[in-house]
Amino acid sequence: MNKTKKFLLSEKEIPEHWYNITADMPNKPLPPLHPGTKEPIGPEALTPLFPMELIKQEVSQEQWIAIPEEVREVYKLWRPTPLFRATNFEKLLDTPAKIYYKYEGGSPAGSHKPNTAVPQAYYNKMEGVKKLTTETGAGQWGSALSFACQLFGIELEVYMVKISYEQKPYRKMLMNTWGAKVFASPSDNTESGRKILQQFPNSPGSLGIAISEAVERAASDENTKYSLGSVLNHVLLHQTVIGLEAIKQMELAGDLPDVVIAPFGGGSNFAGIAFPFLRLNFQEGKNIKCIAVEPASCPKLTKGEFRYDFGDTVGLTPLLPMYTLGHNFIPAPIHAGGLRYHGAGVLVSQLLKDKLIEAQAVQQLECFDAGVKFANTEGIIPAPEATHGIAAVIKEAQKAKEEGKEKTILFNLCGHGYFDMTAYQDYFEGKLSDHFLSEEELHSGLKYLDTPKIQ
Amino acid sequence: MNKTKKFLLSEKEIPEHWYNITADMPNKPLPPLHPGTKEPIGPEALTPLFPMELIKQEVSQEQWIAIPEEVREVYKLWRPTPLFRATNFEKLLDTPAKIYYKYEGGSPAGSHKPNTAVPQAYYNKMEGVKKLTTETGAGQWGSALSFACQLFGIELEVYMVKISYEQKPYRKMLMNTWGAKVFASPSDNTESGRKILQQFPNSPGSLGIAISEAVERAASDENTKYSLGSVLNHVLLHQTVIGLEAIKQMELAGDLPDVVIAPFGGGSNFAGIAFPFLRLNFQEGKNIKCIAVEPASCPKLTKGEFRYDFGDTVGLTPLLPMYTLGHNFIPAPIHAGGLRYHGAGVLVSQLLKDKLIEAQAVQQLECFDAGVKFANTEGIIPAPEATHGIAAVIKEAQKAKEEGKEKTILFNLCGHGYFDMTAYQDYFEGKLSDHFLSEEELHSGLKYLDTPKIQ
Repeated sequence: MNKTKKFLLSEKEIPEHWYNITADMPNKPLPPLHPGTKEPIGPEALTPLFPMELIKQEVSQEQWIAIPEEVREVYKLWRPTPLFRATNFEKLLDTPAKIYYKYEGGSPAGSHKPNTAVPQAYYNKMEGVKKLTTETGAGQWGSALSFACQLFGIELEVYMVKISYEQKPYRKMLMNTWGAKVFASPSDNTESGRKILQQFPNSPGSLGIAISEAVERAASDENTKYSLGSVLNHVLLHQTVIGLEAIKQMELAGDLPDVVIAPFGGGSNFAGIAFPFLRLNFQEGKNIKCIAVEPASCPKLTKGEFRYDFGDTVGLTPLLPMYTLGHNFIPAPIHAGGLRYHGAGVLVSQLLKDKLIEAQAVQQLECFDAGVKFANTEGIIPAPEATHGIAAVIKEAQKAKEEGKEKTILFNLCGHGYFDMTAYQDYFEGKLSDHFLSEEELHSGLKYLDTPKIQ
Repeated sequence: MNKTKKFLLSEKEIPEHWYNITADMPNKPLPPLHPGTKEPIGPEALTPLFPMELIKQEVSQEQWIAIPEEVREVYKLWRPTPLFRATNFEKLLDTPAKIYYKYEGGSPAGSHKPNTAVPQAYYNKMEGVKKLTTETGAGQWGSALSFACQLFGIELEVYMVKISYEQKPYRKMLMNTWGAKVFASPSDNTESGRKILQQFPNSPGSLGIAISEAVERAASDENTKYSLGSVLNHVLLHQTVIGLEAIKQMELAGDLPDVVIAPFGGGSNFAGIAFPFLRLNFQEGKNIKCIAVEPASCPKLTKGEFRYDFGDTVGLTPLLPMYTLGHNFIPAPIHAGGLRYHGAGVLVSQLLKDKLIEAQAVQQLECFDAGVKFANTEGIIPAPEATHGIAAVIKEAQKAKEEGKEKTILFNLCGHGYFDMTAYQDYFEGKLSDHFLSEEELHSGLKYLDTPKIQ
């Protein structure tokens, strides 16, 4: 055992503001379009789904947005989160690279998701909302919002992607324990769900379908609003507490990362750690490389198209400018359910288009191998989503070794894998496989897409 | 939401010594007896099972025992643990009592058990031990030792009580992920297991049986030693880091508990938080009431006999002076697997005999009701074991309300329930029940016991 290097902040150092990267982006994101007319829409179009404060944040150009005191109070339950140097993992990799990780798994829901679930529940509560609907993939988002809604006394209905509903029963029970109602999606609660079930009775579901169901439910009841766990600007905004804390902690360590790495589903985890470091690039002339890591079986960043697309499968949401595989794309049932989404958030898409960030795709087996190596040296068992970041870290550490460079790597360990133990068991028993998409599969979702392309 | 009140210590405040209560006890514990001759035995009799440093700690009369620097380094992964005031829970209970809890669930294995797993693995490693065996009930201990053995490069074989092996598959997978081999006990790996299976082919197992198996395996191989997660003096010693930190944190809160509460299985959790507060009673004339809470279905403290008994079912261990239901007692398959043990640790037994601590028994349904109330106000979902403490806290808080007293209560939230979600699900679905022991059942384990009684 090497010395444990942990860098802690005091409660007073929980950030007082979220960082809004829009203010610093050289090219601002394009506006959303109306799903029917395909004309640009303003914030008022979002009022059936979101409370006004969140809509304001969605379109804000302010660089800093104050975190309400009530939200910081709840953050105190698990924030500031620790930052560690992974000295034993470094030793195993026999690398000259220094590897740091920020650990977000200590929250009651076990991931970074409560960072946005709590303010979302709070703003809805403030505006008198009685009930929320949402979707969830692996269940990290659903359980985070269940926890937050329970604390603020808001009812919650969760549409959980069917394959994850079956793979991760403990996540469902967790949501139930916090008082939420959970349905396997596609369900027959909604038009959207029934439509999919008619076409594909054995559909394993997808985040896109689950979003359609949750949005439909919220839009059809005026006392109910909708809540999303990633993709949207205000969600990414809330997650910047991760990177803001990490910057202070890297200072404590007397270090600055050359590379910042995070898994990528819709962007909340990646944005959370990377955006505050990108600010240092924008404002202080730093040159920190930020890498978003997606599963090879759902490669929107590395193989998708940059164009307008729906956020959901059925086509109920506004059209957003993003890297996408097409809203009909149904990804393979990998265990990293949180990364099975057809599109990338608007902010991250624009940054990638402008080459201000990088993207990589990794296969499932490589990820689990990385996760086990990490667990056996550092003790924490990472969520399958988080293993994608670790796989990329190993690559960077090996490159550093080949190049003989002392590089500093920081990654976001966004959640623990204690609800995903069956995935590890399947991996040990040789039941998991990689997923190589044929050209046909890759284009299956884009082929018939009639949404506007972007040059 | 009320204000979050969290009391944190810096890493430097991780205790440098464990507190050995033996030094301060008015009546020292009686010596162990040889299982065959029933004559007192010395420390040397334990050498086939334990490394010398742990044996020294087992019989030490020193008040303070230094924590090795290497152990403190690993402790830093999750220590110091936070202490919270449960303001939202207080509000729900509408009580004048102030309720504090120490939260040990943030360790990689999710409970307080790594506090002793790490030093045990360390001392074994230092003395050249290659392999350990152990038993586990709900799996908290087994996973803690798997984690610790993995960090120190020691092989591990775990005998897991069969009913828990079936109820808690995720715990088994967790141990596997940290590299341990796990067997459902009774197994056919050992004479002890085969003997039980012959008599009771459908035995749900018990901690006593699993201990027999693990001890037999260690005793029959000179490179293998045995490790226990509770009951023994050195195990309770290691857990005192909990209470030592809590005392400093209660000082930060400007408060001192009137009552300290913890669940009771073999004693490690209770001792961990209570012993350092008992020191204040012994040395500073304080009058802090310490309550051990056991399940009504396994009531050794409240209904057992104080006499010599075996630590295991088959009768391989030395005879220890303890409150016991008899080593043949097979408890009902409640979900709090960690509390299903026939006897109480020697130190706790002597303290109870001398009326220096108190004991209570609670039923399963009351515990889950308490656990859900806590989860819905404070956010953390407690392990079934931990809910026993919470049920007793509710009783104390209600008493304070009836008496109109502003009482200060501290309890040890020893672990989270994220591996026990099926238990909560069963509770919600009305599948759980209470267990009322008939007089016959209660005495079933004591009836034919021929071990020495103690006056």
